[in-house]
Amino acid sequence: MRQNHHVFEHLIELSRDLEPVAVAVAFPVDDVSLLGATEAARQHLIEPVLVGPKSRILQVARAAGQDVSGYRIVEAETAEAAAEQAVGLCRKAECAALMKGSLHTDVLMREVTRSDTGLRGTRRLSHVFVMDVPNYPKLLLITDAAVNIVPTLEEKADIVQNAIDLAHVLGIAQPKVAILSAVETVTPKIASTIDAAALCKMADRGQITGGIVDGPLAFDNAVSLRAARLKHIVSPVAGQADILVVPDLESGNMLAKQLEYLADAESAGIVLGARVPIVLTSRADSAKARLASCAVMAMLVHARRRQQPSAGNGGSGS
Amino acid sequence: MRQNHHVFEHLIELSRDLEPVAVAVAFPVDDVSLLGATEAARQHLIEPVLVGPKSRILQVARAAGQDVSGYRIVEAETAEAAAEQAVGLCRKAECAALMKGSLHTDVLMREVTRSDTGLRGTRRLSHVFVMDVPNYPKLLLITDAAVNIVPTLEEKADIVQNAIDLAHVLGIAQPKVAILSAVETVTPKIASTIDAAALCKMADRGQITGGIVDGPLAFDNAVSLRAARLKHIVSPVAGQADILVVPDLESGNMLAKQLEYLADAESAGIVLGARVPIVLTSRADSAKARLASCAVMAMLVHARRRQQPSAGNGGSGS
Repeated sequence: MRQNHHVFEHLIELSRDLEPVAVAVAFPVDDVSLLGATEAARQHLIEPVLVGPKSRILQVARAAGQDVSGYRIVEAETAEAAAEQAVGLCRKAECAALMKGSLHTDVLMREVTRSDTGLRGTRRLSHVFVMDVPNYPKLLLITDAAVNIVPTLEEKADIVQNAIDLAHVLGIAQPKVAILSAVETVTPKIASTIDAAALCKMADRGQITGGIVDGPLAFDNAVSLRAARLKHIVSPVAGQADILVVPDLESGNMLAKQLEYLADAESAGIVLGARVPIVLTSRADSAKARLASCAVMAMLVHARRRQQPSAGNGGSGS
Repeated sequence: MRQNHHVFEHLIELSRDLEPVAVAVAFPVDDVSLLGATEAARQHLIEPVLVGPKSRILQVARAAGQDVSGYRIVEAETAEAAAEQAVGLCRKAECAALMKGSLHTDVLMREVTRSDTGLRGTRRLSHVFVMDVPNYPKLLLITDAAVNIVPTLEEKADIVQNAIDLAHVLGIAQPKVAILSAVETVTPKIASTIDAAALCKMADRGQITGGIVDGPLAFDNAVSLRAARLKHIVSPVAGQADILVVPDLESGNMLAKQLEYLADAESAGIVLGARVPIVLTSRADSAKARLASCAVMAMLVHARRRQQPSAGNGGSGS
């Protein structure tokens, strides 16, 4: 087994020379979420704007031995208010990214997805776990295990494209995308095998671009060349996937959790498709995973700025 | 425009050295269907067994100036009885193929598909139009425009495989199979585009073998390289299809009829997937089309004998 989590170290290294990104941190009122922001700030990855009840934030900072006097704090009494304010900062382009603090993902995403004041872009929102799996030779992206519950084919097409675009930003020029199912053959009774075939053809026809897509593939065929060979699967993706697209949230969540808890993987979670990248960390994340999340976020913001020079310091504006 | 229908002439030529095949002709009680059989017999393609009301058959033969004294006649008073007897001859391996005379296709197919006394094989029955289209540089197979009304994906997989197997028998080693739809992109609202993508993946995974499958393709992209290029379709099939797989019977029937009536095409119709090949001619067929049907049938029977030497003179036995 190779050394643990060097893929994340590489990501953090890659982002170290980038200018720090202004990030709205929604409701950082426990030590873990506040430390995630201050540690990333100390590494010059982000410039946090702490959005929440000022007195509580200062109290948590004191208890954790953190100095937050150098950071802007935007007052918001409740989690709901903090989510609204943080989204507003991104909408006004005062911040270029959004980071979840100590509040429910649902509360934050409700504000993000509001049609009038939210951060919806032209593409569907989707979540990617950027995973460092010790027993896999490279970065592994898993999508969507957190936002889209039972995506339709059209939604899956956006999910795949979002993940491919992220892979490009992370330096993977032609990501290999495995569309997962329980089997590698097309089986009309298993709907995800049909979706997989359709997504492949969408890639053939240029409806999905920038990656090499194959599926259905079972998990073993997707990540193990030996398993793929044993099954006589002829595929440019099998055994060497960069991106695993799961059939639905349930299977994806179990897959991601299994990798974390039994295969010693660490993950950075990020929501794509909005006007700004959204970092969703969880309490269980390690310090390195939190830093990696910020590194991914910073790389996304800078990539967008290169594409849209007019976007300025913030997102694509309000 | 190249000379008319030389593709059929080529087929007939190919089958000329084959030993004549014993064919049960069901209810040949009009001049057209009787002449179809006797003409093919004169060309040494078939040995007809005429199944129907003997007196009526002899009367038709006399009126048409045909000598049928050399052929076996099996007495059957009605169309239903003739269908049953003709199917029985094939089941008993006394005949190696079945030919429709002057009766409704439904009546014949009802006997063919009976579970106890019929001719079902292991694969689904499907129909192929073998077409000679003056304005197309090669043979064009269209399936299924006559038997399966609204095929499911599983049924389409059999339809495609039957057509590929027929193409092999006709000398096309790696037939190019276009799965037709109204558009060439995967469009969730058009179910046939999803089926097309699934069939392609089935070919990738070895669930369909022996051909190069691509789709969805619109009719123009399938048969015109120029149209495919204009649409920037990168496909080994587009513009040069050997086989067109239609989404359903309705669209296929209109397509085949349009080719016959407006593009001067001729067609031989054959049902595959049963224990013996079944020739379905229609009154409108030309003499050459009828001969071509028998040529295709003879080639199928001889190909099967090469694969199953024990099958003897008839089909795969009862």
